[in-house]
Amino acid sequence: MSFTIMAGGSGTRFWPVSRRKCPKQFLKIVSEEPMVVDTYNRIRPLAKDDREIFIVVGSEHEEIAKEFFAGTKVNIVVEPIGRNTAPCIGLAAIVAQSKGLDEAMAILPSDHYVALPDVFRRDLSMAMDLANKESCIVTLGILPTRPETGYGYIEVVVEGGALEVGKAFSVRSFKEKPDLSTARHYIASGRYLWNAGIFVAKPSVILNELSHSLPDFYLGLEKLKTAMDSPNFYALLNSLYQQAPNISFDYAVMERAKVPIFVIPSSCGWSDVGSWFSCYELKCQLKKHSEDGNISEGEVWFFSARENFVHSQTSRSIVLLGVSRLLVVDTNDALLIADLDRHQEIRKITEHFSKSEKHHLI
Amino acid sequence: MSFTIMAGGSGTRFWPVSRRKCPKQFLKIVSEEPMVVDTYNRIRPLAKDDREIFIVVGSEHEEIAKEFFAGTKVNIVVEPIGRNTAPCIGLAAIVAQSKGLDEAMAILPSDHYVALPDVFRRDLSMAMDLANKESCIVTLGILPTRPETGYGYIEVVVEGGALEVGKAFSVRSFKEKPDLSTARHYIASGRYLWNAGIFVAKPSVILNELSHSLPDFYLGLEKLKTAMDSPNFYALLNSLYQQAPNISFDYAVMERAKVPIFVIPSSCGWSDVGSWFSCYELKCQLKKHSEDGNISEGEVWFFSARENFVHSQTSRSIVLLGVSRLLVVDTNDALLIADLDRHQEIRKITEHFSKSEKHHLI
Repeated sequence: MSFTIMAGGSGTRFWPVSRRKCPKQFLKIVSEEPMVVDTYNRIRPLAKDDREIFIVVGSEHEEIAKEFFAGTKVNIVVEPIGRNTAPCIGLAAIVAQSKGLDEAMAILPSDHYVALPDVFRRDLSMAMDLANKESCIVTLGILPTRPETGYGYIEVVVEGGALEVGKAFSVRSFKEKPDLSTARHYIASGRYLWNAGIFVAKPSVILNELSHSLPDFYLGLEKLKTAMDSPNFYALLNSLYQQAPNISFDYAVMERAKVPIFVIPSSCGWSDVGSWFSCYELKCQLKKHSEDGNISEGEVWFFSARENFVHSQTSRSIVLLGVSRLLVVDTNDALLIADLDRHQEIRKITEHFSKSEKHHLI
Repeated sequence: MSFTIMAGGSGTRFWPVSRRKCPKQFLKIVSEEPMVVDTYNRIRPLAKDDREIFIVVGSEHEEIAKEFFAGTKVNIVVEPIGRNTAPCIGLAAIVAQSKGLDEAMAILPSDHYVALPDVFRRDLSMAMDLANKESCIVTLGILPTRPETGYGYIEVVVEGGALEVGKAFSVRSFKEKPDLSTARHYIASGRYLWNAGIFVAKPSVILNELSHSLPDFYLGLEKLKTAMDSPNFYALLNSLYQQAPNISFDYAVMERAKVPIFVIPSSCGWSDVGSWFSCYELKCQLKKHSEDGNISEGEVWFFSARENFVHSQTSRSIVLLGVSRLLVVDTNDALLIADLDRHQEIRKITEHFSKSEKHHLI
């Protein structure tokens, strides 16, 4: 049994807190711990020991990851460059296999939130048991609570009865982020779950699938396996990644798998925390807001101000007067003040800074 | 001839930039110079030398004033405690008289803005000439450009013809800040000017008026005159101020003067810059705004943002996204984000901090 936490991402949707040097998974956005550490803590009770846990990070984040996990014995696996989830999962599978960890491995994003970790562990355990019993890939599907357009969906084969927790279902198809009317249709049908990007399978199953869908990359992995503890491992890995396709595991494997794909419905209170706005909504669900709907992290005073979200990483005193639905993010070198409902445009900012060569700001 | 610049105020309407230790007149709010220095530069060409210029400051601001005027020979006059304009002007008059400056003295606020200093100097010269010729008090009245409710008004005796620049008129009365319909009536009548708080008279005239309206205080001033260069001057001054009435020169003298009061209409582009909002309006009039109506002072980027006013005293990068009519004031230890149209509520903030013993913030 093993657990791979994918922490290679490099988004800037949480600008100005998230930067290239410190993307979301390394930030304390929801709790008092970096998200990747929360993810580790969530699955740790399922592992026999830390050596069953792999954290895959980009080379630019090796240091920060080693710092965060200094007190543990987890495996930090470093990708030479970012290449989406298919290469990352392939690498994790070959590393696990070479360490003799042939049982089911769980592959988990590093920057999601789970309100009910006990429920999450129960459902993940069930997925791992199933993946150990037969050649298949199992995924967790989140029971949707609203017609969310920001998530991908999993269409389930429901023959009589309804989707329920504690049971595995066959997957009919994976769906991209829908528009609102499609999302409403999904919810009404009772046959769709949110895709949380969590996969469980034996390393051999994953590698076998990759041998069909990405044969060149698979051969590279096989070669890498023979060099696992040799001095030229990193040179080989680097050359493999240089040629690796930039492709997701969903696309390369899940949508065309030879083995059956199952899904375990889960109601673990999952959120991908994909933006400052969803972070605000999550914190409101967690009842962290004031009577006026304000959420403040830092030294903040509100006067006639409603439904604002202030996240401060400085010790400065912040006063909001007569404003509503503002997002305020305060860091030592940058300050963002945005309409909370226009969070999707934050990428415009980093794009602009990128074009105008303000690289220190991204 | 002499000039007294009253720099004793201690407002916090420009919070968080203005603090008790550094009120508006010592701040660079409109130009690259502190307002009191702009005021000095404005009248300096009218004075024979710096020794004709008096800057009256509160004791807590003596150091900062001495710094600003270190390269000059102006007289810094220190008030032991703040006691409104009547004691301040009385003190200035007795000091000027004791220095043999018996000709007309101009008394000027230190924290106003004048767009056309040449016009201002021409009109002030005319007022000083008139005050030298006869026993009277002369004031500058600003030709109003809108029914402003934030200013006091001067009602003028207009016998045939209309108010015009370059000519002195008799004053009928002084009016408090009016409501909007009254202000509109004032403008429509053509008989009202804005009261800019600028007075011109000979020291002897001012002291004579004070001998009628504030006889005890006047006697104290006379005693002070005899001790002008003695070691117990400050002890005397202190005891005089402890007992001095907290009363404005408008109320103590202008509204009940024995001598005639004249006003010179002026169109010098005056503004009292009484709030962040009026500062924003002034800068818009000076065409300092972007196409989208944004005014920024500091490292500021706007994305889909209109009519915002950002004043930064830090080197941080500030981004506004999708917001409009916000006031953002950024300092090292405090950040204000307010609805620009609710600037009058800023005093609530300092009142709150005062009550909750956050004295370092006010």
